[in-house]
Amino acid sequence: MKLLRFGPAGKEKPGLMDGSGKIRDLSVVVGDIDATTLAPKVLARLAKLDPAKLPEVPLRTRIGACVAGVRNFIAVGLNYSDHAAETGAKPPVEPILFNKAPSSIVGPNDDIVIPRGSRKTDWEVELAVVIGSRASYVTEAEALSHVAGYCICNDISERAFQMEGTGQWMKGKGCPTFGPLGPWLVTRDEVPDPQDLGLWLDVNGERMQTGSTATMIFPVAHIVSYISNFMILEPGDVITTGTPPGVGLGKKPPVFLKAGDVMVLGVDRLGAQKQKVVAWKG
Amino acid sequence: MKLLRFGPAGKEKPGLMDGSGKIRDLSVVVGDIDATTLAPKVLARLAKLDPAKLPEVPLRTRIGACVAGVRNFIAVGLNYSDHAAETGAKPPVEPILFNKAPSSIVGPNDDIVIPRGSRKTDWEVELAVVIGSRASYVTEAEALSHVAGYCICNDISERAFQMEGTGQWMKGKGCPTFGPLGPWLVTRDEVPDPQDLGLWLDVNGERMQTGSTATMIFPVAHIVSYISNFMILEPGDVITTGTPPGVGLGKKPPVFLKAGDVMVLGVDRLGAQKQKVVAWKG
Repeated sequence: MKLLRFGPAGKEKPGLMDGSGKIRDLSVVVGDIDATTLAPKVLARLAKLDPAKLPEVPLRTRIGACVAGVRNFIAVGLNYSDHAAETGAKPPVEPILFNKAPSSIVGPNDDIVIPRGSRKTDWEVELAVVIGSRASYVTEAEALSHVAGYCICNDISERAFQMEGTGQWMKGKGCPTFGPLGPWLVTRDEVPDPQDLGLWLDVNGERMQTGSTATMIFPVAHIVSYISNFMILEPGDVITTGTPPGVGLGKKPPVFLKAGDVMVLGVDRLGAQKQKVVAWKG
Repeated sequence: MKLLRFGPAGKEKPGLMDGSGKIRDLSVVVGDIDATTLAPKVLARLAKLDPAKLPEVPLRTRIGACVAGVRNFIAVGLNYSDHAAETGAKPPVEPILFNKAPSSIVGPNDDIVIPRGSRKTDWEVELAVVIGSRASYVTEAEALSHVAGYCICNDISERAFQMEGTGQWMKGKGCPTFGPLGPWLVTRDEVPDPQDLGLWLDVNGERMQTGSTATMIFPVAHIVSYISNFMILEPGDVITTGTPPGVGLGKKPPVFLKAGDVMVLGVDRLGAQKQKVVAWKG
């Protein structure tokens, strides 16, 4: 299934995309695409619905972030060997983890705001994992059974906030609009191998990032298992799993986003996002 | 007001502590002590209630974390000059920020579980701030008006997970039970000066930490304003503001928690917590 949320920001309703690309309203069946709905039993019930019997939603409706009520939005740093190389960093021996503020989450096609005082706002196309059931001390073999599905995340990053100030990357990762998620939460059954997905990102029509989840240093199952040794993962938590090469920081010389730029990005099986970059307005 | 949550873990109800130390049931008035209830208007409405007219709750009822549905649980590192000195770190020039997993939040008197594989589980008595209204790019002068109230946090930390592995402190800060909050959320009006509160922590009856929020490097108003430049703070978000000297890591030689230890800790005006330390059981 391709689950999604549609409608004005802050008032999204749950929906699904049917086989013909039409959005169907799920709000008569579930309250939202959130921790409750992502439980395996509820997803199994949704999978039995006939989408044709659900109300159709006008095609040009805004799409919101594909999951609501995210509490823990975790990111993995430097998880592609080729990306680690371009930043000048050594490939990590264990996953590097940091947090993105839940308040940074926006729809897949919403504007990205360059934060006040930013000089180094950058892009990162990523495969994000949405947790469907509580995971604590789970093995790598068990890990994927705790995943409800996958979506695209553009892990927008302010490099100066992230790395040039005092202490911990999260300062440059959770600014308002820095976490577009969607368009769809694609359930796990439709992604047979999360380590075989192409990723790409264009800025103003120029291909900047090209990669494959096949070159992840730590695959998804390892990441979920690893994190579960340090904290309980709960339904609705999101883990974005790192970016392939081609970020602005890695260009020679570095290139960063400016107002008016347009990003288009995609991950195989998960659709695409399109964002316009806008200046901060006080 | 002293707001609290009582009842079995996961099924807490909202309450308040009246002037005579009795718990009163607020569940007929609000759903929970959460983002909705912490809005200034709702708090103003609660302040007008006559506690004597609310149902009394048996005294020995379990107390839960004093705030529900926390999404962003932020912590400030090395925020007391004397604590920075004991860890051998230079006082930071800007606040060091990291995240604690929301799933680490427990009641103020619940057991603390030493995580699997831990050798260095440590204590940190802290003043925590609970956000009551959305804060984005707020000035220091405005900052405290976005605070609903204060509570105690024992910022339990696994030092090896935090600092000896690869990348970012949050690995040692969000383990299950590492975030006791409470017993009460004391509303801002009852804490006229958050920079004049004594803090203390005992392990097995021995005083380990003694301090005052007067020696914070970055005061609460600065912290809230500072964080709001990097992310939107939302109602129900919790910021724990750093610990005074006396943590286990700072002892010579270092001392860490073991099963059977008992911690008792307090902050002026905010009550006290008591936790038993237990071993991890698979």
